[in-house]
Amino acid sequence: MSANPQRSTDDGLIAELAAIIGPGAVRRGAELDERYIRNAWGYGNETAQTPRAIVWPRSTGEVSRVLSYCNAIGQTVVPQGGLSGVVGGACATARDVVVSLERMNGIGEIDDESIIVAVEAGATLQAISERLAERRLVFPVDIGSRATATLGGMIASNAGGLNVVKYGMMRQNVLGLEAVLADGTVVGGLGKVLKDNAGYDLKHIFIGSEGTLGIVTRATVRVFDKPQAISTAFVGVACFAGVARLLRRLRQLPLGTLAAYEVMWSSYGQLIREFCTRARIPFPTDCAFYLLIEAHVECDAIERVLAEALESGEAIDAVVAKSERERAALWLVREGSGEGLRKLGSLVTFDISLPLADMPLFVEQASREVAALFPATRSIALAHGADGNLHLIFATGGGSAEERLAIDHLVYRKVKEIAGSISAEHGIGTSKRPYLGYSRSAAEIELMKRLKSTLDPKGILNPGKVLHDVG
Amino acid sequence: MSANPQRSTDDGLIAELAAIIGPGAVRRGAELDERYIRNAWGYGNETAQTPRAIVWPRSTGEVSRVLSYCNAIGQTVVPQGGLSGVVGGACATARDVVVSLERMNGIGEIDDESIIVAVEAGATLQAISERLAERRLVFPVDIGSRATATLGGMIASNAGGLNVVKYGMMRQNVLGLEAVLADGTVVGGLGKVLKDNAGYDLKHIFIGSEGTLGIVTRATVRVFDKPQAISTAFVGVACFAGVARLLRRLRQLPLGTLAAYEVMWSSYGQLIREFCTRARIPFPTDCAFYLLIEAHVECDAIERVLAEALESGEAIDAVVAKSERERAALWLVREGSGEGLRKLGSLVTFDISLPLADMPLFVEQASREVAALFPATRSIALAHGADGNLHLIFATGGGSAEERLAIDHLVYRKVKEIAGSISAEHGIGTSKRPYLGYSRSAAEIELMKRLKSTLDPKGILNPGKVLHDVG
Repeated sequence: MSANPQRSTDDGLIAELAAIIGPGAVRRGAELDERYIRNAWGYGNETAQTPRAIVWPRSTGEVSRVLSYCNAIGQTVVPQGGLSGVVGGACATARDVVVSLERMNGIGEIDDESIIVAVEAGATLQAISERLAERRLVFPVDIGSRATATLGGMIASNAGGLNVVKYGMMRQNVLGLEAVLADGTVVGGLGKVLKDNAGYDLKHIFIGSEGTLGIVTRATVRVFDKPQAISTAFVGVACFAGVARLLRRLRQLPLGTLAAYEVMWSSYGQLIREFCTRARIPFPTDCAFYLLIEAHVECDAIERVLAEALESGEAIDAVVAKSERERAALWLVREGSGEGLRKLGSLVTFDISLPLADMPLFVEQASREVAALFPATRSIALAHGADGNLHLIFATGGGSAEERLAIDHLVYRKVKEIAGSISAEHGIGTSKRPYLGYSRSAAEIELMKRLKSTLDPKGILNPGKVLHDVG
Repeated sequence: MSANPQRSTDDGLIAELAAIIGPGAVRRGAELDERYIRNAWGYGNETAQTPRAIVWPRSTGEVSRVLSYCNAIGQTVVPQGGLSGVVGGACATARDVVVSLERMNGIGEIDDESIIVAVEAGATLQAISERLAERRLVFPVDIGSRATATLGGMIASNAGGLNVVKYGMMRQNVLGLEAVLADGTVVGGLGKVLKDNAGYDLKHIFIGSEGTLGIVTRATVRVFDKPQAISTAFVGVACFAGVARLLRRLRQLPLGTLAAYEVMWSSYGQLIREFCTRARIPFPTDCAFYLLIEAHVECDAIERVLAEALESGEAIDAVVAKSERERAALWLVREGSGEGLRKLGSLVTFDISLPLADMPLFVEQASREVAALFPATRSIALAHGADGNLHLIFATGGGSAEERLAIDHLVYRKVKEIAGSISAEHGIGTSKRPYLGYSRSAAEIELMKRLKSTLDPKGILNPGKVLHDVG
């Protein structure tokens, strides 16, 4: 008999799990690498603990058998992809068993005729994109954490990212989806039809539900021909009215060709100039706003729009990439701020939906109010401008839980006032759960809880994520 | 005391309803015009009966009060828009109260900056489109029954139609949605943000659920700039391989510019030539397939593709519209077959999803097998080719319920064999309910029933539609 009763219980659990999916697919939590416990960015790890155990199923059948067992004994389960989420959605507690999908990483048939690809949930976005590139195809959703983010995690969080204006979010691109319910029942499949109104469309229940209603195991996704032309521009703008007007001007381009409209505040530009060694803003002028614009048209089309913007005074300076190398350098400004952010220490980050026109005042007021509480605060703002999605980052120099709470409270209260969304693309996880009621009515949250209880009556699936534990 | 007990019960019900929303908004079923009872096309009316009563609420609050009352007394309710559905989804039985949304037909604010429009559920597609046209905007979903179809019905049935290849179905275009649950609870609202991952996305539960989970009262929908260029072509093709190859060739056009790829079998061409006086095929050659192609590009772009197709022998003949009048004439071939179909008498119609490549064999086999049972049968086929959506129509000259049943059974069995969908865009209603299990697993139907029981525990909302009555 073991001296440690918890240890002895864990031994029993691990033996049972090993009997279900083989000893090579189970490990004790204490033996785990950090990357199974915490997000590497350092956000959303507030509740993260070492889980009881982890299992690595290799098939939908194995996921089903693990869930069936866990459900029977009331063992809570946390589904895990690449742990690149930033709201704690894939973090476990010491009570949980982690179900990692990383060994289910197959990329199946690419149907070239209708351009659909079948993928297992654990395949990373990068692996999928590389496979598609061989056929001159692209995946519609692209996000910064492409090296670790998995298909399953991207579906569970309805990922958005850099090209939503053109292709939509994950929800718009998943054609078929297979999921395992809490009790081990498998529903759905690798459907490829574009139109299917045969009863309730169950896949939309799982997309964006952050693993609380079922575990996504496989999916079919629409992919697209690599664009024939790509034009990328970096633009400096004098005031926010110019940001909105230039987006309007871009409606001259054929519908569906605008692929990215990334807005960076001067605070972001300063971060790049001061703290980032690799990323370089392509002109010396300090601007109130910088834009990274990408459109799937020939360069002359975007140059015509930019010429008008420069002439009218909206734009101060503009550069259009003339090679793939120059394009990569422009994107590095937008994607290469991690180096600078890490130098600022502990960060409090936001992912808010609000009308584009409301952004400048929101950023200004929130920054002022946070600075009033914590005077050393540096605030940095950037946005997916065409999507109405603002990312706001505060570096206070502190990093205490109280400080984070105070800033969260301040910013989310402002989101509530303007009827924005407290989560545009990152989800709720545990980090934003206290504020769900700022964007959703009591009736809506009650309905979410009824759905959770219906699909997962024992509350074993990713407990405490999105909603407080409901049983 | 009335001599007719049913009549006396109805008097009580009508008095109660009148007390809730006013006597001018309630009428006895027996006083109703046919258009509130049966679809004018004559499809999907198998179960239609005169309802007990109809109510016409003018606001979400009135819908809520009516449902709250009906739920309390266990009175079943059938939500009704324009009754243009073809699967019986809006038909009532003698036990039901109809809730007509036709007086909630307001078209609210058009937000020109982000191009979003707020609409009440009873507004017709035509009224919405006309309002948008004043601003050079277009509604993304267009369907043949635009004069009667309402926003609410289009959301409830996740309508698709003629431009799905470009804009997607209703589900892809609804940004915010307000619905009333069975017990009168109002959820959702007129959200305008493009990205919103704050908890489960409840609107997707109501979209496509055919009024069985809640009544949609208002919504915000994305609308689009009128395309700068529209090219419309009518093409004759010698064999189905050419239909698939030409669709592939059209991938040369910029992504997102192809707006319609309508395929008509020779059987459809014969219907037009023999029985339609207004619609005219623009060339005399009899072809195996006709295509109506529309793309939002200048004519020369589509002419280049067609020149290649003619040269390679895929296309036999082709016409490109040179004016809006010519364009309308080409569309009349695709949309003007009603005149001919009515002359054929009673019809059995199908709306099937299957891969484009499987369509010709499916049509040929199904037509042969139906003709073996009913020798006088004429079969007519057309498809939304880019969506994998086949419409198959059988005119047997008979019209008995047994005949319809035999043909349904035969065709849906074939859909099951090829793992297609028994409903691409029309929904299930009552007409296709017996065959839901051909496209959905027992576990999926069980999950649908659990959702229904969760949202509508007394089963008062549109009973018997999509699923057999569940309580």
